[in-house]
Amino acid sequence: MAGFQSLPGFRDYHPEDFSRRQQVFRVWRSAATAFGFQEYDAPVLEPLDLYKAKSGEEIETQLFSFTDKGGREVSLRPEMTPTVCRMVGEKAGSLKRPIKWFSIAEFYRYERAQKGRLRAFHQLNADIFGEAGPEAEIELIALLIQCLAGFGLTQDDFIIRLSDRNLWFYYLEALGFTAAQIPAVLTVVDRFDKAGAPQVEAFKPYVEKFGPLDQTTKNRVHAFALQSGSNFSEQEILTLWLQDAKPEAREKVSARMADFRKIMDGLADMGLKDFVEMDMMVVRGLAYYTGFVFEAFDRKGDLRALAGGGRYNDLVKKLGGPDLPAVGFAIGDVTTGLLLEQHKKTEPYANAPAVYAVIGGEAARKTAFADIQALRASGVRVEYPFKDLAFGKQFKTASESGAKLALIYGDDELAKRVVKLRDLADRSERDVPHDQVVAVVRDLLSRR
Amino acid sequence: MAGFQSLPGFRDYHPEDFSRRQQVFRVWRSAATAFGFQEYDAPVLEPLDLYKAKSGEEIETQLFSFTDKGGREVSLRPEMTPTVCRMVGEKAGSLKRPIKWFSIAEFYRYERAQKGRLRAFHQLNADIFGEAGPEAEIELIALLIQCLAGFGLTQDDFIIRLSDRNLWFYYLEALGFTAAQIPAVLTVVDRFDKAGAPQVEAFKPYVEKFGPLDQTTKNRVHAFALQSGSNFSEQEILTLWLQDAKPEAREKVSARMADFRKIMDGLADMGLKDFVEMDMMVVRGLAYYTGFVFEAFDRKGDLRALAGGGRYNDLVKKLGGPDLPAVGFAIGDVTTGLLLEQHKKTEPYANAPAVYAVIGGEAARKTAFADIQALRASGVRVEYPFKDLAFGKQFKTASESGAKLALIYGDDELAKRVVKLRDLADRSERDVPHDQVVAVVRDLLSRR
Repeated sequence: MAGFQSLPGFRDYHPEDFSRRQQVFRVWRSAATAFGFQEYDAPVLEPLDLYKAKSGEEIETQLFSFTDKGGREVSLRPEMTPTVCRMVGEKAGSLKRPIKWFSIAEFYRYERAQKGRLRAFHQLNADIFGEAGPEAEIELIALLIQCLAGFGLTQDDFIIRLSDRNLWFYYLEALGFTAAQIPAVLTVVDRFDKAGAPQVEAFKPYVEKFGPLDQTTKNRVHAFALQSGSNFSEQEILTLWLQDAKPEAREKVSARMADFRKIMDGLADMGLKDFVEMDMMVVRGLAYYTGFVFEAFDRKGDLRALAGGGRYNDLVKKLGGPDLPAVGFAIGDVTTGLLLEQHKKTEPYANAPAVYAVIGGEAARKTAFADIQALRASGVRVEYPFKDLAFGKQFKTASESGAKLALIYGDDELAKRVVKLRDLADRSERDVPHDQVVAVVRDLLSRR
Repeated sequence: MAGFQSLPGFRDYHPEDFSRRQQVFRVWRSAATAFGFQEYDAPVLEPLDLYKAKSGEEIETQLFSFTDKGGREVSLRPEMTPTVCRMVGEKAGSLKRPIKWFSIAEFYRYERAQKGRLRAFHQLNADIFGEAGPEAEIELIALLIQCLAGFGLTQDDFIIRLSDRNLWFYYLEALGFTAAQIPAVLTVVDRFDKAGAPQVEAFKPYVEKFGPLDQTTKNRVHAFALQSGSNFSEQEILTLWLQDAKPEAREKVSARMADFRKIMDGLADMGLKDFVEMDMMVVRGLAYYTGFVFEAFDRKGDLRALAGGGRYNDLVKKLGGPDLPAVGFAIGDVTTGLLLEQHKKTEPYANAPAVYAVIGGEAARKTAFADIQALRASGVRVEYPFKDLAFGKQFKTASESGAKLALIYGDDELAKRVVKLRDLADRSERDVPHDQVVAVVRDLLSRR
């Protein structure tokens, strides 16, 4: 029979691969825990309707969905957000606020596999429920930064771009767009190219739907999209671009800019100024965001987004729960892994026992087994040869294993009721009374 | 819209549940690591044929299987064994032997949910490849014991039952059964009741297929099944029950009993005698086992099996890999969890920050943020209030949070360029110069 293979877009994690994955999870988990987030997990399979309710019918084409043997329409989870909304929604009444939760889990999307995109991938999802103010955004963005800085990556390696769908709404409202027109304008913004003048091409879908738009307004939309760095051109925006707007409309824009600044200032107070910049070009396609949105990118710009998130105050309620403000982000393991490789931040694979037991025959084996078991039960990693081998061969294996210590059980030692303890680094040796071996080894290892 | 629910047999892990799960995984991982097993992971979705090749067509009724959007017949993994055989088989040439691997992963079976059985459950799978001798069984059974003893469970709480399909084959061969008849006899053994005389009922399927069987032979099959405890009735078996057998047949039985004893003796040398007993009644239904088989049970006997395993020397080759001896076991989280609850070995949920920052207004917040971020970046869990609150309320929250230390940022402290550090256990306070806060807190916490 021919050998089997794993499915396209799915990964085998051989021990070396697994160890790299664990490094990523360890840094993420340690960051989320330090920030006071509680870890949860959830089913890998959910009712298909949960995803349709959040993202619409068309999501199904990207899902590993099927009908189970009980006739239920189900799907492998493509993301955590609807599930965590369901879970928090169910128990919202009994949970202390703010509710700060995180998970590290695998997700599945039926997409074309390409660089930085697989069909099965892991994400850390971190969310804050029950806090409507920008303090939650500060907390989350600081955590996202730590989820990358924790690997030793710096502001030269990655950047968080912050934008605000609310501010866009208020600004476009002040410019005179209607609630029906605004989503179409945001689609235009999503198509803007960083370089170049107000793009005629980009406005085409809007114009086709709502009719012609004067050049000044186009310029003002484009100019707002170009707001970036650490400060708005606030004076210019309020008095020049919005000169025709009603005072209340201008006030809404101004108040929202103050919230935006609060986030930027809070992060600056934390010493994270250089990790984050305003970029109003970011509008994030996902329609369910209701306020601030942010993305993390590598500075070189040759990778897909590292992470993305934002505020989604309506979703818990939409999925059947109470009215609960929410903000969250997800960071993925695939692009993070590529970035760590680029910057040589992946840890080498370590697979060394602490102790190697060298055993001289069957009688010695009986004695050795008691110590090996006692050491292992106390958490010390011990290896030994399954079969009787010559001492020379065993010492070679012991050295190659990377063990720090060798315990030598030979006839001479047996007769003297001792075990010879060899430090494999400096090759020093000493006899240890048999009944003290476990204590001596544990003590030596704890001192390193 | 009505609230969504998780699918039957699938679990939500709220933080308290997640923490209980992590306790189980931590003990398992620590045991497997101390025994020198390397951790791996694998796809949650595999080609359906992989499971059919191992277990036959009929397995599909128990699987979450479906046709993916690319027309592939796929299945959520019901177990790890075929996958790890595929992975090890692919790279067998480059892996140092013995290959000792483990994983902790979730599996999915479309079965009726009941006590101790869910549709999604976790297992630790541990396997040794490349070692044909009983030394591998000793290592694995010792690990299995540690996977339960690591929780503080003792020989009074659980027991490993060891049996041997090879020994059964050799014994039945010596009694005169043919290779075609032996599997049918083992099916009979699987139906034996511990109590009672040679069961007429149990032999019925055999008799219907192969014709009548004399009472002496029935008695000898039944007597062999009753072999239990720590020693075979070896003299009786070889000279009395097998008196009509050929010497070579008796020799095979005798040699195999020596291997059996080697396992029992090895475990006894490790001090694990009371954790394991022979029980020839265990034949394990799964046809792919080729030698020793073992199961773990709670002593009270009111739970489903805790773990099961055995030798499967043919499977790697059957799945397209090289000829590679293998032995392994799986232990599940559902019954293990029930056992831990019964014996009150589950850890209480801990969710306390190390430090709570009490913040007296916006100016103080700026100062506090720098320290909070520095402490968190160094791995210290810090909480603070998102909003400005009265000091009294903040102290109450700090106490209730379970934090060890409070850092107090008030106007007085700001003016003096200090932070007040309060030990929340003994309520002692002292001023710490602002630039030393991080170092002082880290030092205090590391001493506890």
